[in-house]
Amino acid sequence: MATVKLIEPEDAKGRVKEIYDDISKTRGGDKVNNIWKALANDPALLDATWNRIKQVMAPGALDSVTKELIYIAVSVVNGCEYCVHSHTAVARKKGMTEEMRSELLSVIAMASQTNALANAYQIEVDDSFKE
Amino acid sequence: MATVKLIEPEDAKGRVKEIYDDISKTRGGDKVNNIWKALANDPALLDATWNRIKQVMAPGALDSVTKELIYIAVSVVNGCEYCVHSHTAVARKKGMTEEMRSELLSVIAMASQTNALANAYQIEVDDSFKE
Amino acid sequence: MATVKLIEPEDAKGRVKEIYDDISKTRGGDKVNNIWKALANDPALLDATWNRIKQVMAPGALDSVTKELIYIAVSVVNGCEYCVHSHTAVARKKGMTEEMRSELLSVIAMASQTNALANAYQIEVDDSFKE
Amino acid sequence: MATVKLIEPEDAKGRVKEIYDDISKTRGGDKVNNIWKALANDPALLDATWNRIKQVMAPGALDSVTKELIYIAVSVVNGCEYCVHSHTAVARKKGMTEEMRSELLSVIAMASQTNALANAYQIEVDDSFKE
Amino acid sequence: MATVKLIEPEDAKGRVKEIYDDISKTRGGDKVNNIWKALANDPALLDATWNRIKQVMAPGALDSVTKELIYIAVSVVNGCEYCVHSHTAVARKKGMTEEMRSELLSVIAMASQTNALANAYQIEVDDSFKE
Amino acid sequence: MATVKLIEPEDAKGRVKEIYDDISKTRGGDKVNNIWKALANDPALLDATWNRIKQVMAPGALDSVTKELIYIAVSVVNGCEYCVHSHTAVARKKGMTEEMRSELLSVIAMASQTNALANAYQIEVDDSFKE
Repeated sequence: MATVKLIEPEDAKGRVKEIYDDISKTRGGDKVNNIWKALANDPALLDATWNRIKQVMAPGALDSVTKELIYIAVSVVNGCEYCVHSHTAVARKKGMTEEMRSELLSVIAMASQTNALANAYQIEVDDSFKE
Repeated sequence: MATVKLIEPEDAKGRVKEIYDDISKTRGGDKVNNIWKALANDPALLDATWNRIKQVMAPGALDSVTKELIYIAVSVVNGCEYCVHSHTAVARKKGMTEEMRSELLSVIAMASQTNALANAYQIEVDDSFKE
Repeated sequence: MATVKLIEPEDAKGRVKEIYDDISKTRGGDKVNNIWKALANDPALLDATWNRIKQVMAPGALDSVTKELIYIAVSVVNGCEYCVHSHTAVARKKGMTEEMRSELLSVIAMASQTNALANAYQIEVDDSFKE
Repeated sequence: MATVKLIEPEDAKGRVKEIYDDISKTRGGDKVNNIWKALANDPALLDATWNRIKQVMAPGALDSVTKELIYIAVSVVNGCEYCVHSHTAVARKKGMTEEMRSELLSVIAMASQTNALANAYQIEVDDSFKE
Repeated sequence: MATVKLIEPEDAKGRVKEIYDDISKTRGGDKVNNIWKALANDPALLDATWNRIKQVMAPGALDSVTKELIYIAVSVVNGCEYCVHSHTAVARKKGMTEEMRSELLSVIAMASQTNALANAYQIEVDDSFKE
Repeated sequence: MATVKLIEPEDAKGRVKEIYDDISKTRGGDKVNNIWKALANDPALLDATWNRIKQVMAPGALDSVTKELIYIAVSVVNGCEYCVHSHTAVARKKGMTEEMRSELLSVIAMASQTNALANAYQIEVDDSFKE
């Protein structure tokens, strides 16, 4: 089957254990989620993914909640059920209210609709957008 | 061909003309873009799309720039070249800096990557996300 | 580059030439389009694709125009510019009016929107749909 | 979690209740489905979606069954499990036979295949399609 | 509902029975999987799909395992849960090791990421790629 | 507009210049392609992407050509024109023959087709795949 053995924290060793500890610490004591337990089967992939995501999702020019909203939008369009669930949970923890979620969904729905229309009509990019 | 005749403002009449005027006014005097000139071939579609987008993209629990960032993210994943161009232009006008754009792209790239991994591993949703 | 050498009708031989003749005949004397000239680099792929498409797109429980509308819908969502152009042209030739095209696009836009909403909300399938 | 509280008809009030009644009436006495109970958390989104879908899916230049077939095609390509289930049920109720469904699926499969081939070969749009 | 009645081998007749026998034989005695039992509702679709897949997946310039890896990659990006499961199982049977699977997933993740970046930046194809 | 200023090698400094040199060296003296010149606007993104791609695409349990074939498959399905072009060029340089390319495309087309069918029929995963 396609599913993968999950490496539980009590079985983690070496670099995997260090990353699990860093995940828990960074996430305020949260349990390590299934995606990390899956990636741990390939420590190099776990390492590259975690270290990059930690850097990318840290607040910068965009705050943490905004980054989570963008993450959810991408995950919805890519049809990733796991990612929609996990990042909706994270976004709520970081402060996404129900009003914000409703507006997020309305924008996703609106964009999906106009994306389809622009592709169906093969609309040419306006010259003014190319300046 | 798939492309559609664009209805220029000088040829617009009745409901289409009213909407064109509202678009210009709402967008601070901007010219009417090609997508609206295409949708104008079907006034009911133009009306429904414009009135909903005006409502959805107005600032609410999320500010205008955040909504544009989400719009761009959806358009990138849906592969809509027109929409990526037009909403990148709009987002800049509303205050998206190059730093914000870089972070937006990093989040889109990160999410696309983990979406693929979660789907490839068919990772089960954690019980904690279902509570 | 990714593009492929197009096999022109005057250079076609054997099985490829026979298929080109069948395409022209089936399409009422039309010229052979670029996709067939590309697939001709792999005669087995050309053969399998043409013979299946001829069978699939022939009128049956669904008429030809309806089949073209479905083809366009799939091509829009898959972001295939070539296919949107070519099948819009074919659909028109088979009788798709501008009114039909407008309604097609409105349905595509509507479905894209509710698809995104259902995926974002992870809505459970109603029991009544499972009966 | 990503799922959302469903607003049951007995808890619906004001604008939501009116829309639920209109859904039941328009659908010939059918129960209100989960997607509407989810959207009801955001009455403006429920209102905009229902009123537009009612207009878009009504028979016009295309009949109701044809519109449902297009809806299913879009939902399959977008990977929306909920929408595939619900619109397959609706399409059957409106008269989609098993023969029609088989042909629908054959067209979706055929288009998905040629979409991939055209994108992989980066085939140029024929001049004749641009006329 | 969207699911379809599965035609079990003991109920298969005529052309369907012949194809079931060919599937079992080609797959080294394996049971006929659900996708074939579903397609059997439309014998012409079953026939076209099985005969083409048998031809396409046979070793040629690419070996069988490589073809399965490509199949999995496509299925992950298209979000086909059934196909990811079934082809991961087949690939393992044909010799895909856990190391190969890890590298497959790393390439899928990497490509998904750069696909998003290239689309977001609307990067122009280098002249050198067009030579 | 959505396109981004390309940082030419002669304008590269510091970390960006080091990475450009590493790209040229790793690619056997090749010119730096547009995607890297675009990513160079965000040195941290350039660094993370290049170092990960160098690691991921290096021969391991899978050889370099196989990895490029998988990369192309993902890029086709994600509709990334730039990536299809660039990785088709790279794959050819690494040894992809026209026969291999034809088989790659046939597998992509086949998988796209069965992905659509499995999603349309909502086929249940066989128990044997879950063992």
